[in-house]
Amino acid sequence: MTDFSDVVGSGLDAQNLRAVLLQVGHERYHNRHPYHRRMVEGAMSKAELQAWALNRYCYQEAIPRKDAIILSHAEDPAFRAVWRQRIEDHDGKDGRSGGIARWLHLATSLGLLPEEVKSQRLALPATRFAVEAYVNFCASHTLLEAVASSLTELFSPDIIAERVPALLARYDFVTTDALAYFDRRPDQAARDSEFALDYVLRHADTAERQQKVVNSLVFKCDVLWAMLDALDYAYGREGMVPPGCFRPEAIR
Amino acid sequence: MTDFSDVVGSGLDAQNLRAVLLQVGHERYHNRHPYHRRMVEGAMSKAELQAWALNRYCYQEAIPRKDAIILSHAEDPAFRAVWRQRIEDHDGKDGRSGGIARWLHLATSLGLLPEEVKSQRLALPATRFAVEAYVNFCASHTLLEAVASSLTELFSPDIIAERVPALLARYDFVTTDALAYFDRRPDQAARDSEFALDYVLRHADTAERQQKVVNSLVFKCDVLWAMLDALDYAYGREGMVPPGCFRPEAIR
Repeated sequence: MTDFSDVVGSGLDAQNLRAVLLQVGHERYHNRHPYHRRMVEGAMSKAELQAWALNRYCYQEAIPRKDAIILSHAEDPAFRAVWRQRIEDHDGKDGRSGGIARWLHLATSLGLLPEEVKSQRLALPATRFAVEAYVNFCASHTLLEAVASSLTELFSPDIIAERVPALLARYDFVTTDALAYFDRRPDQAARDSEFALDYVLRHADTAERQQKVVNSLVFKCDVLWAMLDALDYAYGREGMVPPGCFRPEAIR
Repeated sequence: MTDFSDVVGSGLDAQNLRAVLLQVGHERYHNRHPYHRRMVEGAMSKAELQAWALNRYCYQEAIPRKDAIILSHAEDPAFRAVWRQRIEDHDGKDGRSGGIARWLHLATSLGLLPEEVKSQRLALPATRFAVEAYVNFCASHTLLEAVASSLTELFSPDIIAERVPALLARYDFVTTDALAYFDRRPDQAARDSEFALDYVLRHADTAERQQKVVNSLVFKCDVLWAMLDALDYAYGREGMVPPGCFRPEAIR
């Protein structure tokens, strides 16, 4: 496994920096996590999928707030005009028809109550801490680092392309309608990550900034990985649900 | 298990609020966590104890910063004069002889290198997120809530009284000298938590404030519990060490 904490040496050209960022994703993106592997292998209980949808909602809900922080740090109206689109994608034109609403639909299609999802009261503390760490990262770091932390989207079309057909083929209670969230995400993620990668490659113009960009993407992979660690511990093989958290019907 | 999110009704007298706070600890303090249970039962590998010491260092290191935030929110010099003692306990008179230094001594006595502990580079992301959530909680909530979140110290003398003899009796590589950190903590924690509990009982003078102090203690129990969840998942029975984290000799 690569030690990414010291990979840029005296500096890289754009092509090599791009290669390092792709390597971070190759080694650390959560498509390698056992929770995801079991999901696409069809080995999960409905309870595990419910727990995933319920906890992941906390992440979805935070993304537009994270993007608003990035907007607030951006001084270029042209940058803001592009980045603003992300908030609209998640919130929808009217605040009720975007990605967050579609994620809620996924959760309720799996049998959860809208209020228990939206309140986030039953989510794992570790989920809330990881999401909060991501939002705070964007608030407390440079615009360049915040943009770099969004680059996990480079890898999201691939994980969606693996997840959606597997969910439909291997779980008879999962419907195409339930997965509507994923219809638009690959195109949105490809568009967004292309813009973000271009921005990062142009602005990471010193070795120090390049290392920071790499660290930011590693950090973001850690956030996503930690969320699946917590799910796997709580709802996976051992089933160690922390006090006060969502307890699926099966073990209520 | 009690739902502590709605326990104060129209308000409690001091005695009953105290009883609720003790009940939170009884149900949710991390002495009930399987990682702690296995530790005191003598069932842990040295690697698991190393991982515990290395990760818990992140928490120890953050405590005086958390207490400085509380100081910064306190307007009463008499309150600050008492609370300041906590920082001195952890940092020592000279910055090198307090609780943090003694925790580092515990970690190195277990065979870790001082630099790998102090850098926190090999700690679990979930540990760092939980500790950051605790520091941010104290920064973003009222003084009363921050003080209430420290009340896990009410329960710490008991867990130490269980942990220290068990470590000495059941692990031949653990020495009395290594555990010097724990010599002073029970008295310090008893003194500190008595002050904090008195403060909370006097200032939580509405039902709303009482519910907030209960929530604050639940939150803090969640922080400590989540830290052990992450350790158990990474180094316990399954051994799912996340990318880039501490890998004990046994599985390097």
